[in-house]
Amino acid sequence: MHRALSIFEKVIVAVLANSSKEGLFTVAERMALIREEFAGYRGRVEVASFSGLLAHFAARRKVHIIVRGLRAVSDYDYEVQLALMNRSLRGQIETLFLVTREENSFISSSLVKQVALMGGDVSGCVSTRVAAALKRKFKH
Amino acid sequence: MHRALSIFEKVIVAVLANSSKEGLFTVAERMALIREEFAGYRGRVEVASFSGLLAHFAARRKVHIIVRGLRAVSDYDYEVQLALMNRSLRGQIETLFLVTREENSFISSSLVKQVALMGGDVSGCVSTRVAAALKRKFKH
Amino acid sequence: MHRALSIFEKVIVAVLANSSKEGLFTVAERMALIREEFAGYRGRVEVASFSGLLAHFAARRKVHIIVRGLRAVSDYDYEVQLALMNRSLRGQIETLFLVTREENSFISSSLVKQVALMGGDVSGCVSTRVAAALKRKFKH
Amino acid sequence: MHRALSIFEKVIVAVLANSSKEGLFTVAERMALIREEFAGYRGRVEVASFSGLLAHFAARRKVHIIVRGLRAVSDYDYEVQLALMNRSLRGQIETLFLVTREENSFISSSLVKQVALMGGDVSGCVSTRVAAALKRKFKH
Amino acid sequence: MHRALSIFEKVIVAVLANSSKEGLFTVAERMALIREEFAGYRGRVEVASFSGLLAHFAARRKVHIIVRGLRAVSDYDYEVQLALMNRSLRGQIETLFLVTREENSFISSSLVKQVALMGGDVSGCVSTRVAAALKRKFKH
Amino acid sequence: MHRALSIFEKVIVAVLANSSKEGLFTVAERMALIREEFAGYRGRVEVASFSGLLAHFAARRKVHIIVRGLRAVSDYDYEVQLALMNRSLRGQIETLFLVTREENSFISSSLVKQVALMGGDVSGCVSTRVAAALKRKFKH
Repeated sequence: MHRALSIFEKVIVAVLANSSKEGLFTVAERMALIREEFAGYRGRVEVASFSGLLAHFAARRKVHIIVRGLRAVSDYDYEVQLALMNRSLRGQIETLFLVTREENSFISSSLVKQVALMGGDVSGCVSTRVAAALKRKFKH
Repeated sequence: MHRALSIFEKVIVAVLANSSKEGLFTVAERMALIREEFAGYRGRVEVASFSGLLAHFAARRKVHIIVRGLRAVSDYDYEVQLALMNRSLRGQIETLFLVTREENSFISSSLVKQVALMGGDVSGCVSTRVAAALKRKFKH
Repeated sequence: MHRALSIFEKVIVAVLANSSKEGLFTVAERMALIREEFAGYRGRVEVASFSGLLAHFAARRKVHIIVRGLRAVSDYDYEVQLALMNRSLRGQIETLFLVTREENSFISSSLVKQVALMGGDVSGCVSTRVAAALKRKFKH
Repeated sequence: MHRALSIFEKVIVAVLANSSKEGLFTVAERMALIREEFAGYRGRVEVASFSGLLAHFAARRKVHIIVRGLRAVSDYDYEVQLALMNRSLRGQIETLFLVTREENSFISSSLVKQVALMGGDVSGCVSTRVAAALKRKFKH
Repeated sequence: MHRALSIFEKVIVAVLANSSKEGLFTVAERMALIREEFAGYRGRVEVASFSGLLAHFAARRKVHIIVRGLRAVSDYDYEVQLALMNRSLRGQIETLFLVTREENSFISSSLVKQVALMGGDVSGCVSTRVAAALKRKFKH
Repeated sequence: MHRALSIFEKVIVAVLANSSKEGLFTVAERMALIREEFAGYRGRVEVASFSGLLAHFAARRKVHIIVRGLRAVSDYDYEVQLALMNRSLRGQIETLFLVTREENSFISSSLVKQVALMGGDVSGCVSTRVAAALKRKFKH
């Protein structure tokens, strides 16, 4: 994200609001966390939620570039499918991939969640803010 | 399938009837769709359902060749496991792989379903007949 | 395991007791099966169950080496994530990988279970003892 | 490239002039082909050659974004290494990946060359201009 | 090969005669080895050499099916490229893949050659006939 | 290596002396570099060169454990082949894999060499000692 902002003037962070599958954090909580994380860029970062297809959301917002992070270990195949599907849904959409920084590129978010759930210390894998939010979450 | 028919005189399309996990289409609906799709070949194409193991079904039908499509993006590892398991279950079974055509080889059927479910236009990824069936399905 | 014992004097087999997700065999059944399998090594093999994180279990037992089997077909990415996560949780933990023997390296345990569940003969993929236990299990 | 131009106002096509390893086309020929290919965009496309490291070339030209095409079939690992190396060489460099169009994403340029060399018709894999240039090349 | 013969009535083994790159065995030696190996099937197996493109050879011989062995460890990506290239060269060509038997599916032929060259015993990886031929070869 | 020494009492670093292919550093230079790098462990680290097969060298030295580093990005397939070949050559040989530390696990040694050769600063990828040796090397 910080890196997307070194390339583009304005970035919309699109949070999926998937009614059937509630995640660990609610959509509101996720949006709040992201807003705090990028408070320094305000004006340049917009946090929005959407339901349905990302391609349709992009169309409504007149956006034609999607930026995705690729971990070095391979979610590559799945991401390629999404990118081609999105192009098939709406021809002018381009998906750009950034390779995530080495230090944390191995650890998937689902593994971080599992470890945090069992009381493991994940402060080496996520930002201080997210580590704190995970801790609060799992106290309940 | 059209390609399997350019190699073999007779092809049985085996539809898994898995009682515990109802798919998007019922077994009957899937068999009907496949029959329509290959109506032109009738006599050479048989559509059958089975439950239990494919290797046992093949044994009952005295078939020793299984044809599978491989997408270019990697379900390869899983397919290799199935092929070797089937050979381990019944020595004379051979699994032949065909690489799917480029245009649609990226898109897994589960992704197509998700997108159709959310109202996306998947006509670029599946045959006209299947696209229509998906549309009818998701109207309800 | 037999191979880990050719390298290390003492091996602890750690069985995950995950209360929320009961496996095919209970923890007690799994521990009993493993004990029988390695009866010949007794004194050198300890079978223990743990809940929570493996890294924490290792810390309690003052162990700093984890041995994992790698199938030739790729659970590699996932295993690398686990290894790095465990090192991130506790710096002195080393994960060692052994490549499993060719004959059975393709078949994942979940595929074996599915096939056994449907009445397939998996004696070519697992030890006689495990094949027998699977058979008993699926009779009920 | 056409796609990079839908994202960025100005694009420099950097052709590696590697004195020790003469490619199929000379650097001059490659630059000419690229110029013709993008003649319609002139003003927005610059074709330049460089020797040494791309990161150093980018520094000299005060560029901090590299765009690379990724074929769906996996040069991924190698590209990730290059991207991380370039970031290690010069912190502010970002590498963006675009997934190439489905129709030709399977065919590596070295395979195209081999086939063209043996008299195969590669017009389905490359632009008309490149196919013609390959034909002329291999006549000699 | 033995397996291809359980599927097809007649099989042509096509040996590439690549004048610029002499392999370990000459084309004549390779053809002789293959002929001996499949002596039992004579009449059903033809051994032929070709130069240029396999797709052109297939056209001359009026063959439209190519059978390739896939090792479980991944030459998959490269084989997919060849299959798609061959279809692009001549539309009616189908490439069928067979997964090689587990016991020897890991070992590439180039690794076997290297090991044999250094005096290693490769009898566990290749047929007795080939092991003997390698031994004779490397004596000189 | 430092990590292998946290597991094993004694480690032999085996440097391949391959007469036909002279590497960037001579065998003597590589052995000297490794000796300096592990000077602190002397007594526990032996640096030896060998020609021919590693399995034969291991047999001569009565060693039955080989330790290899795996980069997270995939030389996995090749390493699995080597491990299985070594076991095929000499049954009691075990290959243990360690996953390399995140910071430098992406960068292959051949990429480092290329970059160093072109004057790039590789101090972020290798130890100070190796970076210095590379610099001296490429001055000539």
